[in-house]
Amino acid sequence: MFRPGPKNLITDVAGLKVGHATDDAVRTGVTVLLCETGWAAAVDVRGGGPGTRETEALAPENLVGRAHAVVLAGGSVFGLAAADGVAATLSAQGIGLQFRPGSPAIPVVPCAVLHDLSNGGDKNWGLSPPYRDLGLRASSAARRDFALGSLGAGRGALAGMRKGGIGSASLDCRGGLVVGALVAVNSVGSVLMPDGKTYWAWPFELEKEFGGAGPPQSAMDLSDPAPDEARLLAIGRLRPGANTTIAVVACNADLSSVECKRVAMMAQDGIARALRPAHTPFDGDTVFALASAELALDESVLRAAQIGRIGSAAADCLARAVARAVYSAEHL
Amino acid sequence: MFRPGPKNLITDVAGLKVGHATDDAVRTGVTVLLCETGWAAAVDVRGGGPGTRETEALAPENLVGRAHAVVLAGGSVFGLAAADGVAATLSAQGIGLQFRPGSPAIPVVPCAVLHDLSNGGDKNWGLSPPYRDLGLRASSAARRDFALGSLGAGRGALAGMRKGGIGSASLDCRGGLVVGALVAVNSVGSVLMPDGKTYWAWPFELEKEFGGAGPPQSAMDLSDPAPDEARLLAIGRLRPGANTTIAVVACNADLSSVECKRVAMMAQDGIARALRPAHTPFDGDTVFALASAELALDESVLRAAQIGRIGSAAADCLARAVARAVYSAEHL
Repeated sequence: MFRPGPKNLITDVAGLKVGHATDDAVRTGVTVLLCETGWAAAVDVRGGGPGTRETEALAPENLVGRAHAVVLAGGSVFGLAAADGVAATLSAQGIGLQFRPGSPAIPVVPCAVLHDLSNGGDKNWGLSPPYRDLGLRASSAARRDFALGSLGAGRGALAGMRKGGIGSASLDCRGGLVVGALVAVNSVGSVLMPDGKTYWAWPFELEKEFGGAGPPQSAMDLSDPAPDEARLLAIGRLRPGANTTIAVVACNADLSSVECKRVAMMAQDGIARALRPAHTPFDGDTVFALASAELALDESVLRAAQIGRIGSAAADCLARAVARAVYSAEHL
Repeated sequence: MFRPGPKNLITDVAGLKVGHATDDAVRTGVTVLLCETGWAAAVDVRGGGPGTRETEALAPENLVGRAHAVVLAGGSVFGLAAADGVAATLSAQGIGLQFRPGSPAIPVVPCAVLHDLSNGGDKNWGLSPPYRDLGLRASSAARRDFALGSLGAGRGALAGMRKGGIGSASLDCRGGLVVGALVAVNSVGSVLMPDGKTYWAWPFELEKEFGGAGPPQSAMDLSDPAPDEARLLAIGRLRPGANTTIAVVACNADLSSVECKRVAMMAQDGIARALRPAHTPFDGDTVFALASAELALDESVLRAAQIGRIGSAAADCLARAVARAVYSAEHL
């Protein structure tokens, strides 16, 4: 029996800190994940309406391949400015790439945003959207303990017809290997089967982390491939970019950026298993993967087998984090 | 309650024919799907060790974007020759792109292969691997009715620690829309939960098409992200290209090649839901999507919503087809 890490948060991967900044009047927020020493990083985008920044710096054929922070933000395109606040904060602390002594440190801060512009909050910001400031605040708030549910980047989120939010989970993979996930769930798809109580992610739940309801106790009709389509159309949710599941998975192994890419790709399966449908034209599903290099992989075992195991663990953690996001938004 | 099409095969999408050719001595085979009028087509590759042909012709930025057949083959790189046999057969019948009267018809025949070279069959073919001939035979055998299980491209396949094979399923999506899937399952991952009897795909099963066992009746430990790793390492299965789930999904709607790409991407979620782990470094998971244009999408409904519904149906069909492949290989 594998167990979550001590906090059951992505910050069980040593060296990570997470901070939220929430604006209740605007009904939005920002969540930042700091990995200040510049971790190997990659990204995999599978939604039909993504909103991102600095993803090309993480492409395998490009040179950077590492990140000093990852930002998840509400606010659609305006939320991309949250990374400005984070980059300024880190650079002022001397964190980032340093090409020449005396020039500013250059932190690489990839970012993905979700759409919460239609949620009824006060969006009359004119020329001054709040996201850069929220990025500054989230950076200052970052620590190893952080809350889940309806706050930070998940403050204004919806998951299908329910309240979305921030989720996280971790797995102690033994031998010193730790894997974790952090997600803001704002999906078209539902985390629950049509009975309204069985989580799609139930097989992966550990220690009743999202209520312990388990598998369904009675038969139900699961044959409709788009059960909420009519209701989602009616409320205008079926628009490109109007929904998104944005996530980060992390581990403490010494993965390269290219190996992180495979982990990010496999982690998308956690979204597929926890949400149905997923990866639709209306989602912007994006998964970042980070690796701290604290732990050298076991050279006596095929390296790619260990990448596969980490990717599978990342998928499981992400499925659990998605379910915990909605569970926490409703119950905490 | 949605129902499968009359045959519960991909050939419920009108205009498709499927043919198998099997070589029991070599323990291999070829499965061809014919769409002779040249259907809109796309492909999505997510495995770490793919073996493919003509995938670039289906890339959104390129010009072709359609196919006259899709070939699934055993034989790893040698299996790519199966498409030679299929292309020759179709061209001789005048099927394909025709640039100038009198020049040979040019059929576009994308192909994906799986690895069955280590399964104990007689592979001493020297300079004459059997795959081109198997491609010719499979083309001749193509019809609307075809068998599932351990034959064609699935003859030498393994699914985790079990026998793999060919699976298929369809869904009548109402309003004249039909979606189907065809798959050859040769995965690292298992179709069954660790109790050895619950299919991961159980939520999607229709009409007891893979035994009707339903959800698990008792608790089990699902926490190990790579439950079969040690056994798979021991038998040499954890090699790049040594495993693969290769599939085709199809519908009768008037999708463009780019819209087929989104359907192929969403269909990968069916692999994620039916197999765990999926999309590993050792799989070559590849999904083709085809659309016949028989049915014009309903212009009164947002077009992208209908793409999303087709993609979700394709994911469900593919999950069911994966489970049926292994069920059929063991029970038929």
